[in-house]
Amino acid sequence: MNIKINENYKNLGKNYLFAEIANRVKKYTSEHPDKKIVRLGIGDVTLPLTKSVTEAMTKAVEEMGVKETFRGYALENGYDFLRSAITKHYARFGAAIADDEVFVSDGAKCDAGNLTEIFGDNPVLISDPVYPVYLDSNIMAGRKISFIAATEENGFLPTPEGIKETGAIIYLCSPNNPTGAVYDRRGLKEWVDFALTSGSLIVFDSAYEAYIHGDYPHTIFEIDGARECAVEICSFSKTAGFTGTRCSWTIVPKELKAGGVSINDMWRRRQTTKFNGVPYIVQRGAEAAISDKGYAECLELVDFYMGNAAVISNALKEKGIFFTGGTSSPYIWMRCPNGQSSWDFFDTLLNEIQVVGTPGAGFGKNGEGYFRLTSFGSREDTVEAVERLKTIL
Amino acid sequence: MNIKINENYKNLGKNYLFAEIANRVKKYTSEHPDKKIVRLGIGDVTLPLTKSVTEAMTKAVEEMGVKETFRGYALENGYDFLRSAITKHYARFGAAIADDEVFVSDGAKCDAGNLTEIFGDNPVLISDPVYPVYLDSNIMAGRKISFIAATEENGFLPTPEGIKETGAIIYLCSPNNPTGAVYDRRGLKEWVDFALTSGSLIVFDSAYEAYIHGDYPHTIFEIDGARECAVEICSFSKTAGFTGTRCSWTIVPKELKAGGVSINDMWRRRQTTKFNGVPYIVQRGAEAAISDKGYAECLELVDFYMGNAAVISNALKEKGIFFTGGTSSPYIWMRCPNGQSSWDFFDTLLNEIQVVGTPGAGFGKNGEGYFRLTSFGSREDTVEAVERLKTIL
Repeated sequence: MNIKINENYKNLGKNYLFAEIANRVKKYTSEHPDKKIVRLGIGDVTLPLTKSVTEAMTKAVEEMGVKETFRGYALENGYDFLRSAITKHYARFGAAIADDEVFVSDGAKCDAGNLTEIFGDNPVLISDPVYPVYLDSNIMAGRKISFIAATEENGFLPTPEGIKETGAIIYLCSPNNPTGAVYDRRGLKEWVDFALTSGSLIVFDSAYEAYIHGDYPHTIFEIDGARECAVEICSFSKTAGFTGTRCSWTIVPKELKAGGVSINDMWRRRQTTKFNGVPYIVQRGAEAAISDKGYAECLELVDFYMGNAAVISNALKEKGIFFTGGTSSPYIWMRCPNGQSSWDFFDTLLNEIQVVGTPGAGFGKNGEGYFRLTSFGSREDTVEAVERLKTIL
Repeated sequence: MNIKINENYKNLGKNYLFAEIANRVKKYTSEHPDKKIVRLGIGDVTLPLTKSVTEAMTKAVEEMGVKETFRGYALENGYDFLRSAITKHYARFGAAIADDEVFVSDGAKCDAGNLTEIFGDNPVLISDPVYPVYLDSNIMAGRKISFIAATEENGFLPTPEGIKETGAIIYLCSPNNPTGAVYDRRGLKEWVDFALTSGSLIVFDSAYEAYIHGDYPHTIFEIDGARECAVEICSFSKTAGFTGTRCSWTIVPKELKAGGVSINDMWRRRQTTKFNGVPYIVQRGAEAAISDKGYAECLELVDFYMGNAAVISNALKEKGIFFTGGTSSPYIWMRCPNGQSSWDFFDTLLNEIQVVGTPGAGFGKNGEGYFRLTSFGSREDTVEAVERLKTIL
């Protein structure tokens, strides 16, 4: 074919981080079929869907099998019942969001990736280390990307101090994946103020808000001024165990304007043209997940995972290894022992104790020398992994 | 904000076609709450999901509620079981597709829209009239678009004769939405030969293949040479009534190369980066839908809708109105009576007999003066709409 391709793809790393990890693990297991792998790698939940969710979805499947209650195409941005449930969820944190500012979608990853396309050639600021989708999707779009260094020195919570860019798109994730660092109100307010004065847009990823313990903002819309400078992406994946069930949302305030154009209108046009909504069955499950009863069940899932986080944290403390996270986040971000590189430590754990984690370097330059462990495993696996870890730390 | 937006969006029509129809209907019903609207507009199914599908999904919901059978993140391109079922579906038509050429997704609309982003600045050829997503997604991408006229003269089945472009991306849909025209093997072979000699890529939309009656190709991969020049998008929406359940697939043959780069690799990179797979529950439903038992049930749905098509077709024949479609397609494409424009006829039907159809002009310039009716309604509604139609034709 004489087709031209999107040349920006050539600037991507060969594999998406988690695909690379899967490949290495697959190779190891095929060569060592007798070894039992324990996975504290990809941020994937293991507890089943809650009772409220499965009951709602079972009922929805029934409805779909009966002519009178069958549902065809839904609104691309989500059923009224779910958008309304999401605005009620925001009210839990004192944030007023209108139904038509909520865009239900099939994944925070999808929205984070697709959002780039409604914008022009703006500078992009991405905290480093961070979830790789912000970076990869902007490489695909050929944007000029700068990194905001999140380091031990700034507690993995960089501030806008010293940033020269204006009219930028700034990606923030709090509680952070992978470091587990969480901004307090003052820290987030600095970013909102910077965005307002520099004419920038913050893309705020709050996918881990359900893990917050303590007085931290669950949404950027708790911060004054955020409605003029921020969109927020959140998900049912980590809150309700929906990684394999697929439902998320993005909040686009109507105040957001660029060159007189409403960003809410643009995102609506993008979604109505290139997306066809989330399955009715899944939307009913999602609605149930954040009902008062369902949300209490979700917080039990969170409590269980935080118990795992404590198991890991205690072992690292015992061994005197520096780490962050594990209190308002399901992630533990540890310094690799003996100055090992992230991927060397990954290979050490895989080959020597058959524990799979995520190399910090996969999240950016500043992740080099660090390693991410997740608390999403079963208790037995977590305890087993920690026992194995202790033998080599 | 000083953010630059994607300026190409300014070249879009104000509303996505079906959103505009919904707005006009909403306005009418709010002003005339007593009038009963009959909808033969948007191509949305009305029969419930089949027994095989609901049974499979109910079981899948159960599995998701139990720790031992719970599933988290799936492969972005679909579970092995579903990709394997899809390759078996292709075997029904004698087309050999490998599992890793199948990319399961949440909608043909999504894939048609997102596919544009892996390509560079190629000329785009879109048959006119056609499903609006091909056009809108390429306007969003700022491509140079040319139209291939589908007219009464060529039976709404244009040939590549006279096309000068090389290295083009060519959108074909057969059976066609909206005209119902369907290419035979010779007609499709002409396009494949043209694509091969001009170095072009065909994006083939086979979403309506289940409606084919007679000896027409169900997939472009029945045609020799197609593996070197075509991708195919298909969907469970119209085959299995999945418009509100969301599952589709795209076939990207490994032979496809552009500048030495594998298109299969590029699409995999796009999907692994910006998509996170279809819900497990839905994939189990989709698998059941194209099992031998499930597919027989699907064809019963198709038969029912084709019965509606006959009701509409017979009335138009009786009234001497020119139309196409309705034999290998759920759509009837009629000429508007008395030389009315498409939107005038839309308004006439809405205001005078409260029947909603789709203005042909919404599908392109050559759709002006035509009107699309769908056979996806209930039998009662279809009969009612046809009775009302007859009063004004």
